[in-house]
Amino acid sequence: MITLTTDFGLADEYVGLMKGVILTICPSVRIVDLTHGIRPQDVRQAALLIASAHQYFPDHTIHVVVVDPGVGSARRIILLEAFDQFFLVPDNGVASLLFKKAAKAYDVTESSLFLHPTSNTFHGRDIFAPVAAHLSNGLPPDKTGMKIPLTSLVRLPLARTWEKDNLLHGTVMDIDHFGNIITNIRQKTATRFCSGNFQKLSVSLGPHTIIGIMPSYDSLAPGTLLALFNSRNFLEIAVNRQNAAEKLKVTLNDRVHLSI
Amino acid sequence: MITLTTDFGLADEYVGLMKGVILTICPSVRIVDLTHGIRPQDVRQAALLIASAHQYFPDHTIHVVVVDPGVGSARRIILLEAFDQFFLVPDNGVASLLFKKAAKAYDVTESSLFLHPTSNTFHGRDIFAPVAAHLSNGLPPDKTGMKIPLTSLVRLPLARTWEKDNLLHGTVMDIDHFGNIITNIRQKTATRFCSGNFQKLSVSLGPHTIIGIMPSYDSLAPGTLLALFNSRNFLEIAVNRQNAAEKLKVTLNDRVHLSI
Amino acid sequence: MITLTTDFGLADEYVGLMKGVILTICPSVRIVDLTHGIRPQDVRQAALLIASAHQYFPDHTIHVVVVDPGVGSARRIILLEAFDQFFLVPDNGVASLLFKKAAKAYDVTESSLFLHPTSNTFHGRDIFAPVAAHLSNGLPPDKTGMKIPLTSLVRLPLARTWEKDNLLHGTVMDIDHFGNIITNIRQKTATRFCSGNFQKLSVSLGPHTIIGIMPSYDSLAPGTLLALFNSRNFLEIAVNRQNAAEKLKVTLNDRVHLSI
Repeated sequence: MITLTTDFGLADEYVGLMKGVILTICPSVRIVDLTHGIRPQDVRQAALLIASAHQYFPDHTIHVVVVDPGVGSARRIILLEAFDQFFLVPDNGVASLLFKKAAKAYDVTESSLFLHPTSNTFHGRDIFAPVAAHLSNGLPPDKTGMKIPLTSLVRLPLARTWEKDNLLHGTVMDIDHFGNIITNIRQKTATRFCSGNFQKLSVSLGPHTIIGIMPSYDSLAPGTLLALFNSRNFLEIAVNRQNAAEKLKVTLNDRVHLSI
Repeated sequence: MITLTTDFGLADEYVGLMKGVILTICPSVRIVDLTHGIRPQDVRQAALLIASAHQYFPDHTIHVVVVDPGVGSARRIILLEAFDQFFLVPDNGVASLLFKKAAKAYDVTESSLFLHPTSNTFHGRDIFAPVAAHLSNGLPPDKTGMKIPLTSLVRLPLARTWEKDNLLHGTVMDIDHFGNIITNIRQKTATRFCSGNFQKLSVSLGPHTIIGIMPSYDSLAPGTLLALFNSRNFLEIAVNRQNAAEKLKVTLNDRVHLSI
Repeated sequence: MITLTTDFGLADEYVGLMKGVILTICPSVRIVDLTHGIRPQDVRQAALLIASAHQYFPDHTIHVVVVDPGVGSARRIILLEAFDQFFLVPDNGVASLLFKKAAKAYDVTESSLFLHPTSNTFHGRDIFAPVAAHLSNGLPPDKTGMKIPLTSLVRLPLARTWEKDNLLHGTVMDIDHFGNIITNIRQKTATRFCSGNFQKLSVSLGPHTIIGIMPSYDSLAPGTLLALFNSRNFLEIAVNRQNAAEKLKVTLNDRVHLSI
């Protein structure tokens, strides 16, 4: 199985062409679109997404991530073997959260696997797609290029949380299709901060403060602001049956803090 | 075959994760996206869509509908057997138009089929996807939970048409991607109202009145307002090669009426 | 394999229904969405896209293009055999760039292949989908209707470039999801115009002038305006890591010219 994660959107034919190339080489492979809605060039968003999403796919899945503002430049394309899966990605930090358990990495340079001519502007079609398809056909990873040390790969500093003055500080990391406000505060970090005493936990976002953590969106009346831990195990701020981000005029990277 | 209908949109990875879960359990199943563009939490829109769309899929298709504002609350998840197909849906009225011919319903509570841990915020991934995949693998429906009486299921009052003062009244039920204005007036209701005399039928929408029913969008010159019966057999108001909803400034639930 | 290219968008169930019809008739076929984001009724955009995209798909692929403002009117539906592939399209010019090498064309009128009743508003579901599925099942092309001369097919004048006063004039043909500005000037036309002397080539768009052609988006610093030849081999104007069309306030059909 191959998954595709890109910032290509679906208005152009770019994703369809990648599938054409893949299926020409490996007609029987299953292709799943993880999403093509990564914000343009937002390597961080893609890094967070793939680190969480890959666990819902079977062993040997080949995850292709093309969020690649450096396409055509000197940046490497790498193949990571980790979690019994493969990750074919640009070496720009998109794999930053996959390194710890990564067993092996390869510098994908075996140009006989690429489409020719190979453009400088669409490696998704000309390199990522054919290489993924050949891997899917059983090509051993070490035939894609030289093995390289994990320490040589680009790592991106992802947004961190920090404690200061008895507050736990974080940021708005994502806003989803429903307008739910996803912070970068992990459930385990928040749990440790309040010693599991969620009724006393205050979540502050601009002028808004929410006390307590609810189990689900529907725990309070429609239109009510609430906080919960979401399906990725991050703290999320939502309004039952409404668009919280619009209602609270929140944007990406806004500050959030917790207090007890 | 499994179809997916949700209000998740495609910008997030939610749909991709459901597919990962399904294909991990049942690698050979075909998955068709019916749409992920249901308006957030609009159970009525999903109910109308699935009632019409299911007929274009083969017997034994499993239709999964996740438009589920009550996710994580006490609302049930139900499996309906109807029309020789399966419908796996929240018990919130989304199946309101499928009951008449529904043979059997089950309360899906067999948690050994779910992903664990099971979140309170994403039953699409943790319950709907794995249950659909197990059904697709041949699990008998009665292994998903207890059979329950159809009369116990939530039914939603869907927008009705009514006659008063020699007028047939309806509402704008949907506006599609082209800006075509889809009313809730069925072709057979309109036909009965005008005794099949379509040339004399007047369709009124705000200050606009259209006389007669055309066979196709292209029946009048580009830019011309017209009425026709659409591919779902509902009365639709369109402007040839233009966006009728924008041009007429029409929004959902606006009133429409017919006169002779 | 079947590819689908439409202007249906993904908010409605239209694409999903086409897939249901196809898979009911031919359960084993692979379906690839090329794009459903063609601008409504923009036959030119679809013509340019399919002429370039088809080459990334294997022999015998059936390309279905439903950009069809004349649906339900007297316009024909045609099946073209060309490039060892099939093109099932409305006869409205969408195949204008496929004729030169087209071996054969058929007027698709064999109504026993259609869904019944056949609507006047959704031939994608009622005609294109079932005919493509039957072809995929091995139906010989000449069973879809009478062979017709290629000279009888509608050809659309596509936007041309022209030389005047030592300038090469073209237009903005497309703006992609990233805001990259795609002109209708082919790489080979530009190369001939400047005799391959790209360092001296000036690209002008409104008040903006760019000197030289870069190999990739990342060739200059982020935020910098540049010109390159894109993956379709057309001249493209981009801003590294930004949305060029928004930044330059460019819209479709704006004029571009080259000088030396």
